[in-house]
Amino acid sequence: MPVQTSPRAARSKIAALKNVATRLRIDSVRATSAAGSGHPTSCASAAEIVAALFFAEMQYDPRNPQNPDNDRFVLSKGHAAPVLYSAWAEVGFLKRDDLLTLRRFDSDLEGHPTPRLPFVDVATGSLGQGICAAVGIALNARRISSDYRTYCLLGDGESAEGSVWEAAEAAAHDKIDSLCGITDVNALGQSGPTQWQHDMEAYRSRWSAFGWHSLVVDGHDVTAILDAFDEARRTKGRPTMILARTLKGKGISIAEGKNGWHGKAFKPGAELDSVIKELESQVVPEEEPATPPSGPRPRRGGPSAPPAKATVGTPAYKPGDSVATREAYGTALAKLGADPRVVALDGDVKNSTFSEKFEEVHRDRFFENFIAEQVMIGSAMGLASRGAIPFPSTFAAFLTRAYDFIRMACISNLNVKIAGSHAGVSIGEDGPSQMALEDLAMMRAQPNMTVLYPCDAVSTERLVELMAYHPGPAYMRTSRPKTAVIYGADETFVIGGLKILRASDKDTVTVIGGGITVFEALKAYDQLQQIGVSIRVIDLYSLQPIDAQSLLTCARETKRIITVEDHYAAGGIGDAVASVIAGGGFTVQRLCVREIPRSGTPEELVDHYGISARHIVEAVQH
Amino acid sequence: MPVQTSPRAARSKIAALKNVATRLRIDSVRATSAAGSGHPTSCASAAEIVAALFFAEMQYDPRNPQNPDNDRFVLSKGHAAPVLYSAWAEVGFLKRDDLLTLRRFDSDLEGHPTPRLPFVDVATGSLGQGICAAVGIALNARRISSDYRTYCLLGDGESAEGSVWEAAEAAAHDKIDSLCGITDVNALGQSGPTQWQHDMEAYRSRWSAFGWHSLVVDGHDVTAILDAFDEARRTKGRPTMILARTLKGKGISIAEGKNGWHGKAFKPGAELDSVIKELESQVVPEEEPATPPSGPRPRRGGPSAPPAKATVGTPAYKPGDSVATREAYGTALAKLGADPRVVALDGDVKNSTFSEKFEEVHRDRFFENFIAEQVMIGSAMGLASRGAIPFPSTFAAFLTRAYDFIRMACISNLNVKIAGSHAGVSIGEDGPSQMALEDLAMMRAQPNMTVLYPCDAVSTERLVELMAYHPGPAYMRTSRPKTAVIYGADETFVIGGLKILRASDKDTVTVIGGGITVFEALKAYDQLQQIGVSIRVIDLYSLQPIDAQSLLTCARETKRIITVEDHYAAGGIGDAVASVIAGGGFTVQRLCVREIPRSGTPEELVDHYGISARHIVEAVQH
Repeated sequence: MPVQTSPRAARSKIAALKNVATRLRIDSVRATSAAGSGHPTSCASAAEIVAALFFAEMQYDPRNPQNPDNDRFVLSKGHAAPVLYSAWAEVGFLKRDDLLTLRRFDSDLEGHPTPRLPFVDVATGSLGQGICAAVGIALNARRISSDYRTYCLLGDGESAEGSVWEAAEAAAHDKIDSLCGITDVNALGQSGPTQWQHDMEAYRSRWSAFGWHSLVVDGHDVTAILDAFDEARRTKGRPTMILARTLKGKGISIAEGKNGWHGKAFKPGAELDSVIKELESQVVPEEEPATPPSGPRPRRGGPSAPPAKATVGTPAYKPGDSVATREAYGTALAKLGADPRVVALDGDVKNSTFSEKFEEVHRDRFFENFIAEQVMIGSAMGLASRGAIPFPSTFAAFLTRAYDFIRMACISNLNVKIAGSHAGVSIGEDGPSQMALEDLAMMRAQPNMTVLYPCDAVSTERLVELMAYHPGPAYMRTSRPKTAVIYGADETFVIGGLKILRASDKDTVTVIGGGITVFEALKAYDQLQQIGVSIRVIDLYSLQPIDAQSLLTCARETKRIITVEDHYAAGGIGDAVASVIAGGGFTVQRLCVREIPRSGTPEELVDHYGISARHIVEAVQH
Repeated sequence: MPVQTSPRAARSKIAALKNVATRLRIDSVRATSAAGSGHPTSCASAAEIVAALFFAEMQYDPRNPQNPDNDRFVLSKGHAAPVLYSAWAEVGFLKRDDLLTLRRFDSDLEGHPTPRLPFVDVATGSLGQGICAAVGIALNARRISSDYRTYCLLGDGESAEGSVWEAAEAAAHDKIDSLCGITDVNALGQSGPTQWQHDMEAYRSRWSAFGWHSLVVDGHDVTAILDAFDEARRTKGRPTMILARTLKGKGISIAEGKNGWHGKAFKPGAELDSVIKELESQVVPEEEPATPPSGPRPRRGGPSAPPAKATVGTPAYKPGDSVATREAYGTALAKLGADPRVVALDGDVKNSTFSEKFEEVHRDRFFENFIAEQVMIGSAMGLASRGAIPFPSTFAAFLTRAYDFIRMACISNLNVKIAGSHAGVSIGEDGPSQMALEDLAMMRAQPNMTVLYPCDAVSTERLVELMAYHPGPAYMRTSRPKTAVIYGADETFVIGGLKILRASDKDTVTVIGGGITVFEALKAYDQLQQIGVSIRVIDLYSLQPIDAQSLLTCARETKRIITVEDHYAAGGIGDAVASVIAGGGFTVQRLCVREIPRSGTPEELVDHYGISARHIVEAVQH
């Protein structure tokens, strides 16, 4: 009965699939004209591909888009959102009338797809990202022993994004034959013809060189598309890329194959009416109607038991031990691997971030992306969207390479748990290219990103566990140098908390540090004690959310607040504290790195750039 | 006399070149051991390539690395910095003894190369960037009608970075045959073997598919390397990639070809002595000594006249006109093109950013990168390093894709003038993926980045001119909606300035906006006037540097400060103002976007997310 289990059976439905494609065009045109904006011509080029996917190729439950064994579809060319929405209307999940709410404030049918919609795994619309997420979604099938397949529709224009080729390498390296990409080669970008226009061989040779099975089809020939999907399904040991030659605006003569129609809705009235009439005239007699599939493939070995949370247990450190937080991160991550949802991703620095500790014990859930941070985060987005708890990690400086992916992970509110090591000038001799001095700013800028910054091994372990199970995206900043363990193994921490390490009722200043500067603050405390000056010292291990109440209390009690951080002036600890104590009328004096640094020893740099104990003592006394 | 003009002549110097390579190894080993850290084995694999480049292939003035007609060399694998420094010692520009200051705070020989050194055009060390910069450096040769060639040495590991393939596409598309890449395929990454190890065909097929002439050589065979350079020089119409099969740690038996030696200096004492002794034993008898080249190729048509600054003249707007700042940006940019140093780069959105206005009049200095933001910024870095004033532009949201490049452009302090359009929720229906709400945070985080945010067409034009000639990196944020022209054509602006638009001695609050929120503040002013409440209104068109003095004066006069911005809470206008008025004991009340937004009309979104006139009025009255 379900047509999709036997692609051969679909052959009697070619006419019906053509009509589905026509209806997808009509609905996309109507929706964008109702909205007054959008990309109907980018939908029109993909209509046969999407019709074939939803009514003949993919195996899924059209009533439950989140069924874990459903084949997945990622619309990497997110601006063609209306064709996706139209497909879900066509299979009956959305009401056709709802399509006319496209792009409205009261509608979840946004201009580009977001996971507000249950059939969208990851937000798209920043090009070149969907295929990276699709890699992660396909990897997830292995994790849960599901046979679902992952399909990803790319635009030809986005093939210029380097991230697409990171995904290409990663998928070929991991031999992901459950992944099938389709590139809608409509030859026209936003502002003009694409780089390769209809040179299909330019595309084919690139994908083949990157280790994919690749083939060229007429993207408006339903039979050819079905044959290509057949071939992809039969191809083992490597992913397949179907390069579909299409026309932008296909079926709409005023726009078909013509430049200048990108991102333009047809004008209601005569223009729209004429387009709809033309499309309606393309309906053909049907032999047999197209029907949506009846459900996904059964899980191998049946459904798995609900996973249990893992714990880091009692950290095996005692006060006075000297351990880098990056190393404690790796130790904690390895322990959390007891939860089968936890996976780790690396960018060829696992021996520096210590994610190698996870690999040693959970090799099947460790994904090496080599030096490709975009697909590392993108793949983590895909994994997270399907229930995994991914921990991608690299040097914090190199997370800037993936900031657009992090931005989109936040728009999707995904459970991506990012760790960045080697923060700040305290890395020393390697110099500024390796120092993250803007990571707190870029992470805090995302309003739903949890931002953690432990200073010792115990707090690191506890916070890794907390971030794993805290909903939404999270970031942990770790440091290169070894630091003293200052917390007992039983100390407790919370997301949004802080620790007051030194306090008395004589304190005249609160000094707030994070990571390595906590130790500078403690040194300053000791020096100031000797001359009879009391300061309060805070370890601000959670920057976002932040414990505004405790900070305000300290501000009221000590009046003065000094922050000290191994980070540039904007967007870090100083700004985080300032923004929440402003309501009480309190301001912050900031010690931070105020210029581009250079190579040197960690001690030289921490002192030269003004964030050492000496500078804290001076600031307190000033 | 100069050996490099006749590669054939170099053949009698093969033995001498081998000895140069041996000395580069010895110097790299000595320097890293003296520093106690660094990457000697990554230097050793590249020694013959660098020796051949500096003593046989490249034409340049070894006494003046900044000669504009010198062949250029970009060390994309920046961690091999010691081999670069050793080469400049070998040609006599550096003192050999200075090499032993490597990585010291008092030395410019940093852990990774930076333009503190006159022979470094762009800082490297974040992998996959050097080749993007090399594209820009090579494009610059066309701009100045010079015949210099550009060489770029990549690591094999960094070939996994998508940015490398963006560069590959861009260079092939622009048919840059003056560009020659060399990939040092030593098969070992930081944490283990690279993805393709010594599968040279995997590399060759990828580069060939991307349109490069590509060839495989033994990277330790000087004759083969010279032949490959010959072939590259004779290859017209496309760039060449030489894939050099090498051994990491070549010549050092304890490390050669062995995993586990990445980023490790040899221990002074027995280990170092034995390595040096082994390398010294590799010196061979020389037929003829290697000599550095005598100078660059002469400029075609001789040296050009020093370029004159261009001006936007008097903006052709009058108060009350309605013009989007993005459009005024394009208009100004086209006028500035009168200066031959000004170039523009696009990522297939030139009709949205209006950089197409520049293309219309200066097609030869307009570079279309298609949808590839990393090479767009990287290429701009290269162009800027050679005297151009590049203006790359795209949607501000998509600049997040290139944040690592922007970070490195700031480390290099390059004259890259970035423009980001479509900022904030005021873009409306396209939804969050297209909205830049963290761009001010990421740009302000860089301490030497100038950050401008005009609200009307006149200020936009003036600020485009100012940013062009202000030294160092700069960013301009523009908006999608049309806004009223509020400044007269003769109004003057300065980097680091602001405009007080409304003021009286009865003001009880200063409201500070930027871009579209300036108009919300003006609306609020009018509404509040009607109920007898006076507010001061500021257009903060320069966020970094910022006019701290005027802000402090307003704070003293009105006591209360409210900021309103189409940006997330962290890192934008609120934080910028708060940090400079804190010294006076003043705090800021922030109106900003505090959650991930959704699609809707601009008006709906500006109001819903709390940054409209209504919210300003409420905040003032609260």
